Amino acid sequence: MATSSVGPTLVLGGARSGKSSFAEKRVETFGLPMHYLATGRAFDQEMRERIVLHQAARQGKGWTTHEEPLELVGLLRRINDPGRAVLIDCLTLWVTNLMMEERDMDAEFAALAAFLPEARSRLVFVSNEVGLGIVPDNRMARDFRDHSGRLHQIVAEKSAEVYFVAAGLPLKMKG
Amino acid sequence: MATSSVGPTLVLGGARSGKSSFAEKRVETFGLPMHYLATGRAFDQEMRERIVLHQAARQGKGWTTHEEPLELVGLLRRINDPGRAVLIDCLTLWVTNLMMEERDMDAEFAALAAFLPEARSRLVFVSNEVGLGIVPDNRMARDFRDHSGRLHQIVAEKSAEVYFVAAGLPLKMKG
Amino acid sequence: MATSSVGPTLVLGGARSGKSSFAEKRVETFGLPMHYLATGRAFDQEMRERIVLHQAARQGKGWTTHEEPLELVGLLRRINDPGRAVLIDCLTLWVTNLMMEERDMDAEFAALAAFLPEARSRLVFVSNEVGLGIVPDNRMARDFRDHSGRLHQIVAEKSAEVYFVAAGLPLKMKG
Repeated sequence: MATSSVGPTLVLGGARSGKSSFAEKRVETFGLPMHYLATGRAFDQEMRERIVLHQAARQGKGWTTHEEPLELVGLLRRINDPGRAVLIDCLTLWVTNLMMEERDMDAEFAALAAFLPEARSRLVFVSNEVGLGIVPDNRMARDFRDHSGRLHQIVAEKSAEVYFVAAGLPLKMKG
Repeated sequence: MATSSVGPTLVLGGARSGKSSFAEKRVETFGLPMHYLATGRAFDQEMRERIVLHQAARQGKGWTTHEEPLELVGLLRRINDPGRAVLIDCLTLWVTNLMMEERDMDAEFAALAAFLPEARSRLVFVSNEVGLGIVPDNRMARDFRDHSGRLHQIVAEKSAEVYFVAAGLPLKMKG
Repeated sequence: MATSSVGPTLVLGGARSGKSSFAEKRVETFGLPMHYLATGRAFDQEMRERIVLHQAARQGKGWTTHEEPLELVGLLRRINDPGRAVLIDCLTLWVTNLMMEERDMDAEFAALAAFLPEARSRLVFVSNEVGLGIVPDNRMARDFRDHSGRLHQIVAEKSAEVYFVAAGLPLKMKG
């Protein structure tokens, strides 16, 4: 299969670090039709309304939105096209959703890792760095932190560029 | 109004990262009369004693100390002078105090953002990065994390230089 | 005493950041006999088994393993030799163990600080950055965070090189 000459971008950052805005601006520089892959789930009416507002705002700027809480790799394969940019926002919520469904995390991560070198769309992944605080008391939170850290290493290793964002400012870690 | 030719400095870092020491040393290089704006409140006698000791130590090095838990912008306006350097230690405690008083955070942050381009004193802000751990269970902590992150983005955007400090070492993110 | 011409390396990072792998690879580049100083304690059979597996894997790559939860400085002095590289994994667990034994943290840190300039082995310290989340509710966790932060500043100050690792990628902060 013909593959993109440009590997993925990974944008890591803390809560309210400006990582998603930075990632959106990065995608806008590619000059390609822009696809937004939202992994978050609306748990209540308020969240649903917020999602609809954000979606409308992106639509006005020319984005096509896809919602996919679990089958991330399947969707990336379906929209795989060198003439497209895809922003995945975010890996953190994908990990959360997979854990809630008790999926086999190693298998899910391996499927993503296997897909990345075949990706033809220009991919930008957003994710929360969550491993720089105190060890959580709660087992679920510790597992989540471990899964997130492993996934970041996997995606970073296959990425052409990796940014760490703090206070809205990007620090280039790779690329 | 005549404004300083040099924009603010923002120093971000974790707990016990050495961010305040770095910020003090940064201010000392400016060669200007040094003002220390403490936003922390003494909740007990032990803390009061610690504050007095720190204040005496800074006084010996030529610092003038101001204590202001809430009206940060008002105080910055009152001491606004191109012949002065002002260290604000720290934004984190200011956010905490504003939340405790149930202030309108957006209005407070907007007032600071509006003041910064008019600042004539040489300003150095210190703040804790708190968004790189697991999402807190507690609503108040989540709100605090969101407010802190938003404020850091606002101040960083208006700053001439931004440092991230870890293990006492500064990493320049802007400037 | 003749001292090494090369100061220590400090590798900081979050949970599952890839910091230990990076540190191991760093040590492998030195071309010296490799010693692994494990500070972790096996609290149960499962952990004991995991430690034995890791130890066997390192042994196959030519590492000699030492286990020392508390007397870190004593052991570093005993194996002090310019013809050796020593990976200390990790300072975080050393701090945990010292706190559990109610040791005098200032005295322990001072002993390490006094030893470092005399170190002849090529040292690589691994530690978890834990100060970038929300202030923990729990006093013990706050103290742990403070001790860790102080120790990182002490070791970084005496180190020739300091790395911050995220998503498996090193960011050089010193050296």
